Amino acid sequence: MLDIAPSQQAATWLGSLGRALEAGDVDAATNLFVEDCYWRDLLTFTWNIKTMEGQAAIREMLEATLATAKPSHWHFAGEASTDEGIIEAWFTFETIVARGEGILRLQDGRCRTLFTAMSELKGFEEQKGPARPLGIRHKADPDRETWAEARAREARDLGVKQQPYCLVIGGGQAGIMLGARLRQLGVPSLIIEKNARPGDSWRNRYRSLVLHDPVWYDHLPYIPFPENWPVFTPKDKMGDWLEMYTRVMELNYWVATKCVSASYDEAENVWTVVVDRVGQRITLKPKHIVFATGAYGPPRQIALPGAETFKGELLHSSQYSSGEKFRGKKVAVIGAASSGHDVSVDLWESGAEVTMVQRSPTTVVKSDTLMEVGFEIFSEKALARGISTDKADMIVASTPFALVPKGQRALYDVIRARDAAFYDRLRGAGFAIDFGEDETGLLMKAYRTGSGFYIDVGACELIINGEIGVRSGVGIKSLTPSGILFEDGTELAADAIISCTGYQSMNETVAGIVSREVADKVGPCWGLGSGVKGDPGPWQGELRNMWKPTAQEALWFHGGNLALSRFYSKYVALQIKARMEGIATPVYGAPGR
Amino acid sequence: MLDIAPSQQAATWLGSLGRALEAGDVDAATNLFVEDCYWRDLLTFTWNIKTMEGQAAIREMLEATLATAKPSHWHFAGEASTDEGIIEAWFTFETIVARGEGILRLQDGRCRTLFTAMSELKGFEEQKGPARPLGIRHKADPDRETWAEARAREARDLGVKQQPYCLVIGGGQAGIMLGARLRQLGVPSLIIEKNARPGDSWRNRYRSLVLHDPVWYDHLPYIPFPENWPVFTPKDKMGDWLEMYTRVMELNYWVATKCVSASYDEAENVWTVVVDRVGQRITLKPKHIVFATGAYGPPRQIALPGAETFKGELLHSSQYSSGEKFRGKKVAVIGAASSGHDVSVDLWESGAEVTMVQRSPTTVVKSDTLMEVGFEIFSEKALARGISTDKADMIVASTPFALVPKGQRALYDVIRARDAAFYDRLRGAGFAIDFGEDETGLLMKAYRTGSGFYIDVGACELIINGEIGVRSGVGIKSLTPSGILFEDGTELAADAIISCTGYQSMNETVAGIVSREVADKVGPCWGLGSGVKGDPGPWQGELRNMWKPTAQEALWFHGGNLALSRFYSKYVALQIKARMEGIATPVYGAPGR
Repeated sequence: MLDIAPSQQAATWLGSLGRALEAGDVDAATNLFVEDCYWRDLLTFTWNIKTMEGQAAIREMLEATLATAKPSHWHFAGEASTDEGIIEAWFTFETIVARGEGILRLQDGRCRTLFTAMSELKGFEEQKGPARPLGIRHKADPDRETWAEARAREARDLGVKQQPYCLVIGGGQAGIMLGARLRQLGVPSLIIEKNARPGDSWRNRYRSLVLHDPVWYDHLPYIPFPENWPVFTPKDKMGDWLEMYTRVMELNYWVATKCVSASYDEAENVWTVVVDRVGQRITLKPKHIVFATGAYGPPRQIALPGAETFKGELLHSSQYSSGEKFRGKKVAVIGAASSGHDVSVDLWESGAEVTMVQRSPTTVVKSDTLMEVGFEIFSEKALARGISTDKADMIVASTPFALVPKGQRALYDVIRARDAAFYDRLRGAGFAIDFGEDETGLLMKAYRTGSGFYIDVGACELIINGEIGVRSGVGIKSLTPSGILFEDGTELAADAIISCTGYQSMNETVAGIVSREVADKVGPCWGLGSGVKGDPGPWQGELRNMWKPTAQEALWFHGGNLALSRFYSKYVALQIKARMEGIATPVYGAPGR
Repeated sequence: MLDIAPSQQAATWLGSLGRALEAGDVDAATNLFVEDCYWRDLLTFTWNIKTMEGQAAIREMLEATLATAKPSHWHFAGEASTDEGIIEAWFTFETIVARGEGILRLQDGRCRTLFTAMSELKGFEEQKGPARPLGIRHKADPDRETWAEARAREARDLGVKQQPYCLVIGGGQAGIMLGARLRQLGVPSLIIEKNARPGDSWRNRYRSLVLHDPVWYDHLPYIPFPENWPVFTPKDKMGDWLEMYTRVMELNYWVATKCVSASYDEAENVWTVVVDRVGQRITLKPKHIVFATGAYGPPRQIALPGAETFKGELLHSSQYSSGEKFRGKKVAVIGAASSGHDVSVDLWESGAEVTMVQRSPTTVVKSDTLMEVGFEIFSEKALARGISTDKADMIVASTPFALVPKGQRALYDVIRARDAAFYDRLRGAGFAIDFGEDETGLLMKAYRTGSGFYIDVGACELIINGEIGVRSGVGIKSLTPSGILFEDGTELAADAIISCTGYQSMNETVAGIVSREVADKVGPCWGLGSGVKGDPGPWQGELRNMWKPTAQEALWFHGGNLALSRFYSKYVALQIKARMEGIATPVYGAPGR
């Protein structure tokens, strides 16, 4: 078969799949895959975010979903491409309720990976482009309600006369993007945010923060950053953009509002949520709640014996905003991942004498290197090749999580060789480096534990030059009145200690707002079950609890960096919209309901 | 020659032009044009906005400019197209200081119209796309100034420690777009606006106002409206967008600031401008000032004998914001152009009894009709054909003003036929309709006088149904204590009279701020010198004084609807940037300096 043109092979395969599925022939469909195969589905068959690994898993999924999904209209889109014997092709298809798109990869004529994702619900398409709203009726009307009046009425009535169908808890980037998607789908929604203004989640962070990811990776849906936007966005500029976005996308957004409690009535299928809005208690009755309180949960405080004896200031990084008051002071920073580095640089810039206490090795990558070799499909060059942000998102999503480590390992072979001198110098300064237990580097650490890595935007040179001190490879025995006592008996004098020890899982936020019982039923968020430290098995194939049904009916989690929030906000919104419209959403592989 | 492929003909012609110009052979170049030819240039040869009409004018321009412009590198871009024997092709070229682009149209192998426009100044290109700024140095730096700090410092110092190179008077859509262009070109600029917030120029208008032009025609540069934006933007939504835009484009924008006076020091080449900023007098020293105070100048008050005897309220439309207080009242609206119609509808919606007093016939076009036949190249269909807003702008600009009437006349033949029944009914209600002295319709009225037309978004049906009364074809003799006395002896009782009589020319604003002498030296703005009523000759070939050098050194006018402001803001900014950088800008055909 290898002498047949790739496009023809792809079209042939897709035709066979379509016929097998329409005939309900699960055997025939399954046999179109190689043994070591993967099918990643976003909602179309499974109403879940799920990767089926191997023929048996695919067979089982199809047996459970085929009769209700009723897939059809499989059409090959564009030209197929070939890379090292693997044929890749894009396609579109339909189910009974939705339109979908996907990417397939063939190996010797059979499918190695299949990716299927919902594009839109039939009859509930977004009003955009040629279908954009007219905006007004061109007609004189004595009962005319202007746009401004309608917006004011909506804001006045929401939570009072009209209950939001969906309550988004947390108005940072993730909550805002989800709110925008929900509004486009006509789902009455309310975002609540503890800060005073949209964008404050960025503004309130430490002074020198600039996004570590480049602009092409960071776009919000609907309104991409303009052409003149800098590659790396300063935090306050990002704050302004989010504030503007919230306004022009007409989101219902309550500032200075905290979620006090939430409980679900399983009989009535409705939440009772008590919020504190600028000091006033308000009870809301949404049908769904989404936790978008940040990729992580509450601050993780590590046990520091003797902490009560320490005479200086002891802070968690979440409480740190500026190094100004530490000028001339000795400051110990516990933790050597992103926030540990950023806080250390901020302190050093402010004139503090900083020592970083490294508890375990860190995966470090130079920002320039990552830009050149890691962000290939999110770049001006990619745009010039026709790979838009939306396409790049699809390409990233089309690789099953199980296959990501292999590519990442190869990438880090390149990175280690390229920056060998840099890594030698950093190690020479006493800094411990690793690339993960299986040498797969930063991205896999991000997926597995969300911790233990740093994109170098300046700290490493300070460590190499000794401007920022490092204590590594020795445990903390206790704090003393004047600093830190290590297990080897050495001491580190400190006027202040800042714990950059990360955050707990998002489900701890649920424990605080809903109940410990529900938090435990839902279980931790994030992580793949890879079996590495901090990410215990069993293997999940997907990120735990993110963007998909959880063990608690009508409770969702949304978050991640800008790119993940952009991409997955679409699928969270589609799931909630489908439920609002009464579309059947049988979840395949739902967690313990 | 007609059997040669259009693209080859275009390339051949362009090659001949390029060779003639590089050889300095003005005769040869001129002979490449048909006798009845036009060359419209935006800055590249003329450092002016100028249309040369006929071979002699082209010859004269080339003789004056060729040696300094030194054009070269003429390259045909894309495929030529043919329409009714006219070949059209796009091209790029360079001058000694700039890159340019253009559109040529050939007739029997020779040029009928040539359009040349400056794209960018060499060495001063905008930082966008692949050249976008990095935004930060990824390096720890104890002297780091964050983005927020730099913005705050800039705002603090501007007008105090640092003088703006360019002062933009008026922060409506035109001033904001120009400010954005200037900032991208690195021209230190300040926009002053009398209202409290960016966008108030729209928000403060009457309640029911919605843009009459569709979204595809209204985009701002750099940040187009998103795909979900309504076709017709409500005024308050437009206000929010402008406010957001001002913020994220980082414009220096003083609210609640009025220009008190301005005088130019011809020896020092600097303006002394006194502004009132929230009650505080501040003296600024910009090198250039741009009047962007609206397409028109101060309100035009018509003489109404006996006005002092009228017992009711007498307002100009600029003072009208809401019909609420006129509920149940008899209101006469003098004037039957856009504002007359809009105010009448707003009054009717508020429950007033409205009579429109029409002083001269009005050009009326139904909005739907104009959308379908008039905005062909600003539409989703055009986008689908690859005609972006930027391309559409170029196509519009490539037709010399002298040739626009012919096409418009044909368009109005179509419109009149299409909506014949509508026009009959409107005439039947006593409303006088015209399509301009030469039947060229709305657009030509807009260019020539900026008055006398209405895009029907609802008023006409009310007039036809008698909901809004009309008095037409009879002059006003005087006001009486209780209303209007007409020359035929009839009277119209009125509790209030609202003059929708338009605005004076922008140079009257100059008279108020600079001096009568300078205003008279500069002369009126807008209008083509077409010889129709309100637009006296001589024929200009371009809009008077708009977006180009005026008779007063360092004084500019910028304005127009969203589309004109978008397009011409680029050329105003390039002219000012060139002067700031000391690039020679010999103006060909400058008015009376």
